[in-house]
Parts: sequence; structure tokens; C-alpha cells
Amino acid sequence: MTRGFYIGRFQPYHQGHHRVVQDIAEEVDELVVGIGSADQSHSVRNPFTGGERIMMITKALADLDLVTYAVPLEDINRNAVWVSHVRSMSPNFDVAYSNNPLVVRLFEEAGIEVRGSPMFDREVLRGTEIRERMIASEDWSELVPDAVENVVAEVDGVERIRRVSDTDVEASPSD
Amino acid sequence: MTRGFYIGRFQPYHQGHHRVVQDIAEEVDELVVGIGSADQSHSVRNPFTGGERIMMITKALADLDLVTYAVPLEDINRNAVWVSHVRSMSPNFDVAYSNNPLVVRLFEEAGIEVRGSPMFDREVLRGTEIRERMIASEDWSELVPDAVENVVAEVDGVERIRRVSDTDVEASPSD
Amino acid sequence: MTRGFYIGRFQPYHQGHHRVVQDIAEEVDELVVGIGSADQSHSVRNPFTGGERIMMITKALADLDLVTYAVPLEDINRNAVWVSHVRSMSPNFDVAYSNNPLVVRLFEEAGIEVRGSPMFDREVLRGTEIRERMIASEDWSELVPDAVENVVAEVDGVERIRRVSDTDVEASPSD
Amino acid sequence: MTRGFYIGRFQPYHQGHHRVVQDIAEEVDELVVGIGSADQSHSVRNPFTGGERIMMITKALADLDLVTYAVPLEDINRNAVWVSHVRSMSPNFDVAYSNNPLVVRLFEEAGIEVRGSPMFDREVLRGTEIRERMIASEDWSELVPDAVENVVAEVDGVERIRRVSDTDVEASPSD
Amino acid sequence: MTRGFYIGRFQPYHQGHHRVVQDIAEEVDELVVGIGSADQSHSVRNPFTGGERIMMITKALADLDLVTYAVPLEDINRNAVWVSHVRSMSPNFDVAYSNNPLVVRLFEEAGIEVRGSPMFDREVLRGTEIRERMIASEDWSELVPDAVENVVAEVDGVERIRRVSDTDVEASPSD
Amino acid sequence: MTRGFYIGRFQPYHQGHHRVVQDIAEEVDELVVGIGSADQSHSVRNPFTGGERIMMITKALADLDLVTYAVPLEDINRNAVWVSHVRSMSPNFDVAYSNNPLVVRLFEEAGIEVRGSPMFDREVLRGTEIRERMIASEDWSELVPDAVENVVAEVDGVERIRRVSDTDVEASPSD
Repeated sequence: MTRGFYIGRFQPYHQGHHRVVQDIAEEVDELVVGIGSADQSHSVRNPFTGGERIMMITKALADLDLVTYAVPLEDINRNAVWVSHVRSMSPNFDVAYSNNPLVVRLFEEAGIEVRGSPMFDREVLRGTEIRERMIASEDWSELVPDAVENVVAEVDGVERIRRVSDTDVEASPSD
Repeated sequence: MTRGFYIGRFQPYHQGHHRVVQDIAEEVDELVVGIGSADQSHSVRNPFTGGERIMMITKALADLDLVTYAVPLEDINRNAVWVSHVRSMSPNFDVAYSNNPLVVRLFEEAGIEVRGSPMFDREVLRGTEIRERMIASEDWSELVPDAVENVVAEVDGVERIRRVSDTDVEASPSD
Repeated sequence: MTRGFYIGRFQPYHQGHHRVVQDIAEEVDELVVGIGSADQSHSVRNPFTGGERIMMITKALADLDLVTYAVPLEDINRNAVWVSHVRSMSPNFDVAYSNNPLVVRLFEEAGIEVRGSPMFDREVLRGTEIRERMIASEDWSELVPDAVENVVAEVDGVERIRRVSDTDVEASPSD
Repeated sequence: MTRGFYIGRFQPYHQGHHRVVQDIAEEVDELVVGIGSADQSHSVRNPFTGGERIMMITKALADLDLVTYAVPLEDINRNAVWVSHVRSMSPNFDVAYSNNPLVVRLFEEAGIEVRGSPMFDREVLRGTEIRERMIASEDWSELVPDAVENVVAEVDGVERIRRVSDTDVEASPSD
Repeated sequence: MTRGFYIGRFQPYHQGHHRVVQDIAEEVDELVVGIGSADQSHSVRNPFTGGERIMMITKALADLDLVTYAVPLEDINRNAVWVSHVRSMSPNFDVAYSNNPLVVRLFEEAGIEVRGSPMFDREVLRGTEIRERMIASEDWSELVPDAVENVVAEVDGVERIRRVSDTDVEASPSD
Repeated sequence: MTRGFYIGRFQPYHQGHHRVVQDIAEEVDELVVGIGSADQSHSVRNPFTGGERIMMITKALADLDLVTYAVPLEDINRNAVWVSHVRSMSPNFDVAYSNNPLVVRLFEEAGIEVRGSPMFDREVLRGTEIRERMIASEDWSELVPDAVENVVAEVDGVERIRRVSDTDVEASPSD
């Protein structure tokens, strides 16, 4: 039995992520999807809560023939303990999938196998692109699984990101 | 569609929890199982990591005809923001199940419906009882679902709790 | 102009505190009332939120001929920086009033003058006594200023402390 | 009885804030002034401590015919729990005043009424403008209430901001 | 070249610790002395600051023919990441010395060799014993190296622990 | 006996720092070298862990005729308590050496003597310059003491910084 680990912020979970997961599914029996910055929300960069992203991922993966776990990970802001943090919050895994050079390095220094995660249509299938389309009232729904579109609608997500986008990029509630 | 929320520490997830979940399954379409103190582990009171408990719960609930989410919740140590913390890390829910008077009060002050969760064979089906049996080398496996027994074996959990039980109750690594 | 500093948890603010403040009022022109453990609430030991305690104190001191500031102080859990924390969150003060030996020592090591705060009818005028009476449905209102009684009523405080008192003393929401 | 809530960083509290408060005073009986980023100080963006800002606001509002509370709020850096944090540290309020789109959104998602706070002479009456004038030794005192000018003098605030402005914008003590 | 790691709270560093270090010196070329709970001070259980304990250890080990490092370690309160925390704050080490069952288990789960640290005259050579003698004005100085006695004198340590011992055991500044 | 305090991030410790220390050695009997942002690592700006930097400094200063202490300091992100934090983690000191205007101001407000630390060949002897050379495979080793070159080699530091430099400047593991 092989269990893989795939990390992202998933703001939102989109077709690019989905194709990566489908590819990984060929190689592993079970997959942990780690949701980074799970404690961040209501900003242009991180519009959706950890719980909303758990819903997106669980719904989008329901039809896959693969045991999956959607695990929210709060930021810990100390690179040297990040791998331990991830391992303690996740079911055990044998291999990690990532293209983020920092993640790759951290896992490798901890002696964990890392494989590159192929990226698809990277020009368009990016969280930034989708969030910008939401703000600009352009079509974004084709870029995400149907289940994600439903979750965004349920939580009134487009209105939320549009509203907070009027705030200064670095703004916090006290500005 | 009704979604319920059920919280515990699940150290470990046992038959008492399982019967509660089976009962709740009669009333809701989906269930979020919130894993409290998910950041605590390797102590007599909290032997298993958040990730190990996610595995226990996901495996034990696999056969249930109910969409379930196992959501780890780090301690926040501020009762007044605890409900917001839970809601942001969990898929939306309509009703919470708990017998913990503090939890009931906090949810009620936040305007969330709470229902009591019936308890079964409370004398024996308690985490404390199971952990004490593990330490004393008495039989405990009948008190948990088979899936949980397997996870405990996979992570060498009985040896872990026995070892850390030699440490003073309040001990930390620096004692 | 002399400004004093008086610290407590004020769970709740009672006649014993009030007499201390009245005595201090003889010696200073302005008084900062520091509310300790301001981030703790909804427990038997700390039933009221920081905001509720600000209200109690501000209302109770309204008639005093003394400029007062009610300043909530979150716990910092590091004695060596506690004085700096207090000073940065409070208007400048010339003298601190306390009978807590730890507080006295910390202020003295920081070179701040400390004066003892006389205590009145210490058998009865204690937060513990008042909270126990609330839980036991005994009369407690004579032990607090009228303004405090009103705040407790407004926030349904007696019911809150009674409810959370059913929880284990050390319990947290995840128990 | 209506209680309002008005939030800002107040670095420093200036005539623009003061006119907003005077306007709000027409609509409410009591006003909570929430001091954001109360734990930040000694930087160009946040030169004054929480305690210094409490003094500015309390002194500037002393003559107003309005019960006011100046409440310092430490940053919590989790938008999803920010409203709970504010509510637990503040006396209860019925309506919040803000023009910050993120604040407006967060309060609205929590079901709290929000009203826009009119802004006055926004070109000049901004904290940034005042802080830049302090650094450049230009006249700034006409932009703040007299009480604020006194507090800045008492804490040697102009010298402080000038000195720390020599540090790189993002600098911390360890740079 | 072999580097060892030895952890304790060292409240204060005493002859029992010193003999352990002398024994370890036979087996390693360099030794890291990790100071646990370095952020705790001014309590009966942790009277001395991290910096004061660095001084005690550095002075007491000055004559030893062994390269030593005294490394303060702030508490992290998450057992599952504790080993990573220690490793990131310490020079690399090959073997850890400890008798604390929790520490032994945590290092072993991380794949690090652990050796027992022999204990000497455990009845008397304990931090608790020494701290109680300080409070009771009994002789304690024979139980610590001369260098430690000097540091305790320099920081007025006996008076400090006596004073804070009047506070309730669990007391914090806000009690 | 005079003890000095000198703070930096030392990413890495280089010849510029070393000459400052040699100069300070003329004025003091003992020197505390405070390692700022000790909890940060594995980024372009902070490639080395606190423990790795302790090694660099201890090894580089071994031949100096000066008692030195290398003290890691975790970030505390609250300027108003930073001096207390430093003092509690460091042996007592009489004078601080710094050119950082914020550090100078914070120490001065706390009543601690500060002396400027002369800088040498500032064009080249900067951490930024050295880190950029490491990334660009240019010669950097002449800019650091031999002991530091050895530590960088032992921890495979050049490969680490090169690898993480592919990550976006602001990237965290979850990007």
C-alpha cells in the first residue's frame, strides 16, 4: 500500500490541481491532500476558509477511485519544523508530490521521497488567474470542477473576494 | 440537506463514539467529525497525533452510508473565539452534537442549535479507560472498531503510551 | 500629576476592589485599572470576557472623582516580559498597587514603585466566593457594585457560569 | 440605548477621526473606540504603543457628551475569528462604523449592522500624512486635537518616529 | 568527531548535572547543553531566566576540557514537533543523553540515538530540593558548582525565589 | 568587569561582523552575541538555522581572547517588549553595540547604554552580498572566517540557498 501527500493552498481547488491528483492516483493507493494556510481567509490571496476548501476537495474527489484525506494545515512560520508539523497532522505517507522548491528541499532534508507534480496549462490554470477573473466578473467556472463551483456559490464566494479586493493588498481589519 | 458536527478528542476513537455517530447518521445527511486538541500527542492524555486520529476515524467510518469529514482542530485556548475557529476550519453545519456543557454553552451563545449526544456504556467506553488498559497491558481492543486497532498497531501506539506514561503526568520534554 | 496602576482579574469586579480603588483615589490623580487574563472567559475561574469586565469597571467608576482607564491585558505567559507588556498597553504610570508577591517582585526588578493595596473583608469579598455563590444560587449581588450586577444580568452571566461549572475544572471545548 | 463601535489604528488619533466620532455621537448613546494593532509600536507605520493611543483617545474625548470606551485590540491575524476577538474584548455594541471593505465584510458575514463612517478632508487628514510631516519636521500639530499633541510631546513621539524612520521599512530589531 | 546533546531545565544547574556532564565528556568531543523552558522564569519551579542559566552553565563548564554550547530552548508545547525545534536551534549532534521517558521516546521516533544519563545522589541532587532549601533558608550552596553560587548571588536569586514562593503555586501576575 | 551585547542575524557570520567583534573586544571583558530571527531558516534571507549560526559564531570566536556567549533569539514581533525578551535570554550586559536605529532607540528608551558598531568595507561585507554570491556560484568564501566556510560545507548550505532561491521571495511551504 502506498500513500501519497500533495500540498497546495487551493484558493480555489481547480482543474490544474484536479489533473495532478488524477495523475498521482495512478501511482498511489491513498492520497492525503494537505491544505496549506488553512487558517487564512477573507483576503484576495486567500479568500476561502480551511473548511470551505475541505468541502471543495472532498466533493471534487468523491468520484475518484482513490481513498483521499483532505487535511487542513495551519501556518507555522518556521521552515525548520514545518515537515514535523505536516507529518503530525497527516496520515503517514510514503511519497510527497510538489514543485515548490522550498517544499522539495524541506522534505528532502527530512529524508522523504519527493516527486515532481506535472502542471497542466499553467498559463490559465492558476489560482491567481481564477481569483482575478472572479474580481473582474469574467468567466472562471470552466476552470474548476463543478463541485467547486457549487461550494463557491454556497458561501457567496465571488461577492466576498470582490468586496475584500477593495481593501489595500496588505490591509488588515485595523487599517 | 442537513450537516451535523460532532466533536471529541478521540484518544482513541472507540465504540462509544462509533455508536453516537451511528445514531447521528439517522438524523443528518453529512457529518463533520471535529478532532479536538489535534496538535497534542505523545502524552498519556493525548497519545495519538492529529493525523493518526484522522486515519482512525476515516477508516472506521468508511462503511457508513454517510458523507463524513474528519477535521483536525488545533487548540486555540480562548473560549470566546473557539466557535469561530471551529466554523472556519469545518464545512458549514446546521446542528452540533455534544454533551460537554462548555461546548453546548459556547454554541448556544453563538446561536447554533445543539443536540445532546447519547452516551453508551459510559463506564467502560471512555478514552481514559482504554488508555489505562493499554498502559496496564489489559485487553482494550474489543472497545474500539477494528480499523482503530489496526492504526494503533501501525503506529506502535501501545508501546508509545506505555513509554510516555513513565513520565510525570505534567511532564514536558524539558523536565 | 500622579498616575497609579492597579491590576486584577476582576471576575467579577466587587466591593473589595471598589474600596481599594477608593483608597487609591486619595493618593493619585488618575488610575489605570489593568484587567488581567482579558482573553480568558466562559470558565468557572474566568466567566466574564474582557469586554464585559471593561463595562463593569467603567460603569462602577463613573461616579468617582478620578480619571480612570480600564485596560484589558491578554496573558503573555512569560514573567520576564510581563512588565513591558503591561507598560506598552497602559498609559504611563508612576506607582503600581498590588499585594500579589509575583507582581510586586516583577515591578520592583523593573525599578517601578509598588505600594500594597489594602484588602477589605477578605473572607467574603473574593472573586471565588462570589462565583461559588452564583453557581449555588446564593445571594451574591450585595458583594458587588450595582453597576456590576446590571452587567452580569445583561450578559446572562449567572446562567453562563452555572452551565460551564458542570464541565470538569480543567476541561476545554474538546473534552 | 444604542452602543456603537468604531475601529482604527489611530497612529495618531487625528482631526479626521475626531469629526467621525462627533458625527457618530449624534446617532449613539455610547461609543467603543477599538484600537487596532494595539501590540505594534516603534515603527514608522505604528509609532505609538497601545497605551499611548488609549491616552490620546481618552483625553481627546473627555469633553464629548458621550460615554466612550477606548479598547486596545491585539492583532490576531486570522480574519475568520477577528469579529469574535473584537466582540470578546469590547463592551457589547449594536452597530459598527467602518469604511474598510474587509471590516465591513467580516461584520456583515457575522450578522452585525455596519454603517459607513464619513471621511473629512481625506487628502490631509490621514495618519500617513501626519507621520510623514513628523519625520520631515513639518507642521503636523494642527491636524490633531490638542490632547493628542500633548501626549506626543509627553512620550517624545516625534523624536521616536524620526529615529526609527532611519531603519529600513521592513526592518526588525535583528536586521 | 562526536557531538552529544544533554537537556534539562537547570533550575539551577547543580552537582548532579555536573557529574553527568563529566561522564558524558568521556564519550564525546563536543557537548550541547540544551536549556529547556528557557522562556520561563520568576516562578518557584522556574526561578531563573534563560540568560541566567546560560551564565551558570558556561561558567561551570569553563574548566572542562570539552567544547560546550549552552543553548536556550523556548517551550513549544507540541511534542510532535519538539525534536525538530531542538535540532534547528542546536548545533548538529550524534547522540542525545536523557532519562526522561518522553524525551527518549521522541528522539527514538525521530531515529536519533539516545543513551541514559546516569544520576548521582538523586535524593539530594535535585532542582526541587535545592529550590526548597533556598526558600527555607537552609544551606544549598554545597549542592551546586561555585560558579552557579556566584550567578545566583549576582542576580539576587534567593530573594527572588523566596518572594515569588509566597504566590500561589499556579499564580500568574493577574491573580 | 564589563559585558557587551552585539546583535545581528548573521546569515552568515562574516568578516565584517568579525572585525566589529575584534574592536568590541578592546572595550569589554565578555561579549554576548545575540542571534536574531533564530527561529527563521531555509529562506533566501535567512538560509541558516539558529543552531547552525551558533556553530559558526562559536567556532569563529574560539581563538579570541574573550569570553563569548552565542545566544539564539526567537523573533517576538512586538517592539515594545523586545528589550525585555533580549535581557531575559541573555547574560546581563552593560552596553549594547548596534547601528540599527530601531535597536538603538529601543535600548535607549529602556535606559541601556548603546555604542555604534563601526562597519568595515560595507559594500562587500554584507550578508545580502554573500548570499547572492552563493546563489550565483561566485566566490564568497573569502568574505567569511574559515570556521564559517566549514560549517556552511557541513550543512550543505550553498545547495540549500540555491534551491530555495527558486521559490518566490515571499513564498511559504504552502505556495
